[in-house]
This record gives sequence, structure tokens and C-alpha cells, in this order.
Amino acid sequence: MSLPNEKSTRSAAVTVIGLGPMGRALAGAFLAAGVRTTVWNRTPGRDRELVERGAISAPTAEEAVAASPLTVVCVVNYDAADSILRRDAVTGALKGRTVVNLTADTPDRARDASAWAGEHGVRYLDGAIMTPTVTIGTPNGVFIYSGPEDLYREHRPVLDTLSGTHTHLGEKICRAAAYDIALLDIFWTAMAGFNHALAVARAEGITAGELAPFAAGIGAILPAVFEGVAEEVDRGDFSDEGSPMTSTASTMAHVIHTSEAHGIDASVMRAAEGLARRAIGRGHGAEGFHRVAELLGRN
Amino acid sequence: MSLPNEKSTRSAAVTVIGLGPMGRALAGAFLAAGVRTTVWNRTPGRDRELVERGAISAPTAEEAVAASPLTVVCVVNYDAADSILRRDAVTGALKGRTVVNLTADTPDRARDASAWAGEHGVRYLDGAIMTPTVTIGTPNGVFIYSGPEDLYREHRPVLDTLSGTHTHLGEKICRAAAYDIALLDIFWTAMAGFNHALAVARAEGITAGELAPFAAGIGAILPAVFEGVAEEVDRGDFSDEGSPMTSTASTMAHVIHTSEAHGIDASVMRAAEGLARRAIGRGHGAEGFHRVAELLGRN
Ligand SMILES: NC(=O)c1ccc[n+]([C@@H]2O[C@H](COP(=O)([O-])OP(=O)(O)OC[C@H]3O[C@@H](n4cnc5c(N)ncnc54)[C@H](OP(=O)(O)O)[C@@H]3O)[C@@H](O)[C@H]2O)c1
Ligand SMILES: NC(=O)c1ccc[n+]([C@@H]2O[C@H](COP(=O)([O-])OP(=O)(O)OC[C@H]3O[C@@H](n4cnc5c(N)ncnc54)[C@H](OP(=O)(O)O)[C@@H]3O)[C@@H](O)[C@H]2O)c1
Repeated sequence: MSLPNEKSTRSAAVTVIGLGPMGRALAGAFLAAGVRTTVWNRTPGRDRELVERGAISAPTAEEAVAASPLTVVCVVNYDAADSILRRDAVTGALKGRTVVNLTADTPDRARDASAWAGEHGVRYLDGAIMTPTVTIGTPNGVFIYSGPEDLYREHRPVLDTLSGTHTHLGEKICRAAAYDIALLDIFWTAMAGFNHALAVARAEGITAGELAPFAAGIGAILPAVFEGVAEEVDRGDFSDEGSPMTSTASTMAHVIHTSEAHGIDASVMRAAEGLARRAIGRGHGAEGFHRVAELLGRN
Repeated sequence: MSLPNEKSTRSAAVTVIGLGPMGRALAGAFLAAGVRTTVWNRTPGRDRELVERGAISAPTAEEAVAASPLTVVCVVNYDAADSILRRDAVTGALKGRTVVNLTADTPDRARDASAWAGEHGVRYLDGAIMTPTVTIGTPNGVFIYSGPEDLYREHRPVLDTLSGTHTHLGEKICRAAAYDIALLDIFWTAMAGFNHALAVARAEGITAGELAPFAAGIGAILPAVFEGVAEEVDRGDFSDEGSPMTSTASTMAHVIHTSEAHGIDASVMRAAEGLARRAIGRGHGAEGFHRVAELLGRN
């Protein structure tokens, strides 16, 4: 007997496939929210702590997926996910059930997985996690999804127990992966710049700790810069009197020069400078660097 | 006769050499603060609006620098600054006066300029502006300086009329330029990543405006990530269980694959992936990507 106010997730159940750092964080958050959680991982033993906290350890992947209407998959990439899901016993057990694949990979792979799911009567949502493991189960987690909206709505109560922000980006299955790729592009390129800057700074006698508050200041202006540039790109407005591409290219050359004078590889900035130089060569020297976004997309 | 409470800047005077977008913003902010402002620019006519607002237009650079105890130089680079300052008439007029060079260039050039100044009895401070023209004269401007601290203290009242944050980074003349280079490295690498991401997103049917709020979310976490990584780099702690370099390299490969499948140049991410792959090749695959900061610095 359940009281009328009892949360629907009290009786909810989920299976988590993949117990790397992220899979363990997901399973831990489900458990903390009182969701009946079954777990499986290719390499046994990764579930010890979760089992102590109440998780059900399934001996095989097929038994794992059979234990819950919803299976969340979170492994290194789609090669790994496919090698788990596309065995007959597992595919059979998934028939009529839902897979939410939170594994990161390319939009192509999401399309391919969805086609496979359709052929085998597996209900399929793609998704991605945009924040590190420590954010899972906290308000800072960011989850994106794409695929059938009714499926998303149906499983949203369970997914919500992970806390954080959940956004459905549309029915096109590849959308979550495409956003993921674009955002990872921004994050890891920025991190390459930051780590390179730390090396250059150190060669100039500046510690990482000394640079950090100023670097954080640069980071702090990026959200507004991103929003402003995005608006201009959508409008097709590539003017930028305050900071023309020729100026940007000259700045980039200073970074390269300083770096290489210390024997520090500047290949990332060299590639970025190449984008600016090519844009200048095409007659866009007086425009802003964001012309590059448009030029890169031209085939 | 001056009242005891009258601000010392009431009688202050400054010369601004270089009237590009930034030089004009600086001169405009000095004028707005009531500082007597003399201006000069290689190409005449750029000072029209400033003169309407009360600036004094000097016919030659030597007359410009002779008009004030402090000259602020802000031109495209040190080649340009040298071509203005290192003419005998100008050098002579500067003797015993102070130059604050807010032109961006490399640490090498700052060292060279300081040596030249020392030989000619010119008092010299180097500096850089870390924020765009719209921030000048507002609390959001960020100015850094290096060189003799007494010189900085002496001219601080006039510099402060620009509003914003002013930081003296030390007596070593090249420090401001070194910070500048490191911070520009971060900013422009991040912008290269962002513009590339916009191109990839568009190829996947995602507009810049749709990506922007998520991109801003990535930007918003960067300050804390930078501070955390900097602290680990200074401590020599390169562990990162949550996100090992092998995982980062695999993510980077996904970005490259998706990008190139759409015919979009991925040279920046290819260079970043190269850094990760080389680190993995040296046995650092289980560590975090910030090991790259240390490896880049090894000669
Ligand atoms: N960690 C983060 O902060 C973070 C943040 C956002 C998104 N993500 C994404 O979340 C996913 C999981 O990441 P993670 O941090 O948990 O670590 P990971 O190293 O990316 O993935 C580890 C998981 O993948 C499994 N796996 C690897 N190769 C396999 C194969 N051939 N067959 C079956 N399973 C295989 C591992 O099983 P074994 O134990 O048997 O090797 C383990 O369960 C990735 O797509 C990652 O990009 C992670
Ligand atoms: N704009 C920004 O948002 C920003 C932000 C931070 C830092 N900065 C830095 O501020 C400095 C000035 O930038 P800016 O935005 O004003 O535009 P800029 O295009 O970098 O510099 C224009 C100025 O340089 C002068 N100049 C160029 N070549 C010269 C030469 N051979 N001889 C003499 N003068 C020459 C120009 O004079 P003419 O009019 O005669 O060509 C003009 O006064 C740069 O170092 C820049 O990196 C700018």
C-alpha cells in the first residue's frame, strides 16, 4: 500500500551499466535518492561499495537490464556500449524496455545506436553529461537528452532523482551528442590554452598560483563573450572595430614567439593563428575573429 | 591656491600617444575624469572627437610628450611604439619624464624598451590592458603594470582616473607583458575553440543561439577549474582519477572525427590532441590533462 503523497520514484527501479567514475557516481546518486538500483560492469568488483550501500549486483548484463524498466548506460564510448548491448541475450532482454545512453561519443554513433534499437524493439534515448562526477546528485549536474519526447517524459521522474539540470534538446537522436561534441570542443580547447599558458608563465618566472586569479578573470568574461559572439554569428554580423582579425593574428604571433623563444611547443596557437591568417587572406582582416566560425563551416 | 581636499588629479596632466580604439578610450576616460589630456596619433584626424571634448591636439609627438609629466603609449605593437619614441626629438623631450607603455607585445620587447629608456634618462613603466575598450573608464577595466614600484606609486593617482583594477606585478619590467601573453593565450585559444564549436554545431543543425547558453555554462565553470588546476600544477599533483588523459584524448578524437566528417578543419583540436597523445606516449595516460603544462615546459 502506498500513501497518495509518496513520490513515484519510491517504487522506481533503474539499472546502471558501466561502473567507471561516472557510472559509480550515477548509481550512487540513484541509491541516495532511494531508487532500486541494479548495477553491472564488465570488470567485476567495481560495485563493492555500491552493493554495501544497497545496490543489487547483477551477475550478467542480461540479468542487469532485465531487472529494471530503465537501463542507464555509461561506459567509455559506443564501441564499449555496443559490445555490451548488442549480444543476443542482452538485446532480447531489452525488448520493450528503455535504454538511456549517457556514454559520450559522436552524433554518428547516436544515430547508429538508435537505428539498432529501433530494429530490435528497444526504446532508446541518447544523452550526455556535461559536468564532472562530483556534480552528480547535486544541483550542479548538467544532463542533456535527445530522442522521443514521450520516452523522456516517461523516465524523467527517475532521471530527476540525479538532481541537477535536465534538458531535452529535441527528437532528433543525434542532438545531445552534437551539443556534447561542441561543448567538449570549447572546454578542451580552452584547457589546452590554459595549460599552455601555465607553461609559458612558468618560463617567465610566474607560478600557476600567481597567474590563476587573472586566468580566472579571463574565464569569468567568457560566458558574456560567448553569448555576444553567438548572437552576432546568427545575425551574420562579423564587424568588430574594437578588435579586428589583423590585431588578433598579431596577438597570436606574440604568443607563439614568446612560447617558442622558451622552446615551448606552440602548435595549438599556431593552428589558431592559421585560421586567422586564412581569414585575412580571404579579405576578412578588418572583421572580428568570429568570421572564422562562418568560414570553417563553408565547404 | 588649492583646497586641501582637492583631488591631486585636478591639476594632473597626461599625454596619450596612439589613438586607435584603445588609445581613444584611454584619452576619453582621462578627459571624463578631468585630467588635462594631450593627444597625438601618427595619422592625423583621429583626435577630432577628443578635441571637441577638451583634449589638446599636439602637432608632433615631441610636443605631445613635452606637454605632460606622464605619457601613456598605446599603439599596435612595439615596432610602432619604437618608431614613435626612438626619434631624437622625442627621446630628448622625454628625458626625465615618464612613459607608461600600455602597448601589447612580448616580454622581450618590454626588456628592450626598458633598456633603451634607461640609456636615455626616460623613466619607464610597462603595462598591459586585459579588457576591451568598452571597459575603460568603468570598474570593469583591468590594467597590469611592471617596473619600478616608486614610479608606479607616483603616477597611480592619474592612472586611477581610468577607473577599473590596477595591479603592479613586480619590479621586473617584463612581468606585465608575460602575464599579458599568458592571458591572451588562454583567451584566444578559448575563442578558437568556441568559434570552431559554432561551426560544428551549425553543421549538426544547431544555431549559435541554441548552443550559447550551454557554451556560457562551460565558460562559467572555467574560473574554478583554472584555479583548481593551477593549485595542482604548483603542487606537482597530476593525478586525476575522474578524467584521465586517455579519456581526454578519446574525447578530443570524437571532436576531430565529427568535425572532419563535416569537412570542417580541426587543426586546433588536432594540435591539442597531439599534446595529450605525446603525454600518453611518455607514460602519463592515467594522469590528468594538466600534466601537459609540466611537459610543455620541459626542454
Ligand atoms: N568522468 C567524468 O567526469 C565525465 C564527465 C562527463 C561525461 N563523462 C562520460 O561518461 C562516460 C564514462 O566515463 P567514466 O568517467 O566513468 O570513465 P571511462 O574510463 O570513460 O569509462 C569506464 C567504463 O567503461 C567501461 N569499458 C571500457 N571499455 C569497455 C569495453 N570494451 N567493454 C565494456 N565496458 C568497457 C569500463 O569497464 P571496465 O571497468 O571493465 O574497464 C568502465 O565501466 C564516458 O563516455 C565519459 O566521456 C565522464
Ligand atoms: N582594442 C582592444 O579591445 C584592446 C584590448 C586590450 C589591449 N589592447 C591593446 O592596445 C593596443 C592598441 O590597440 P587598438 O585597439 O587601439 O588598435 P591597434 O590597431 O592595435 O593600434 C592602432 C594604433 O597603432 C598605431 N600604429 C600602427 N602602426 C603604427 C606605426 N607603424 N607607427 C605609429 N603608429 C602606428 C595606429 O596609428 P594610425 O592611426 O596612424 O594607424 C593607432 O594609433 C594594442 O597593443 C592592443 O593589443 C587593445
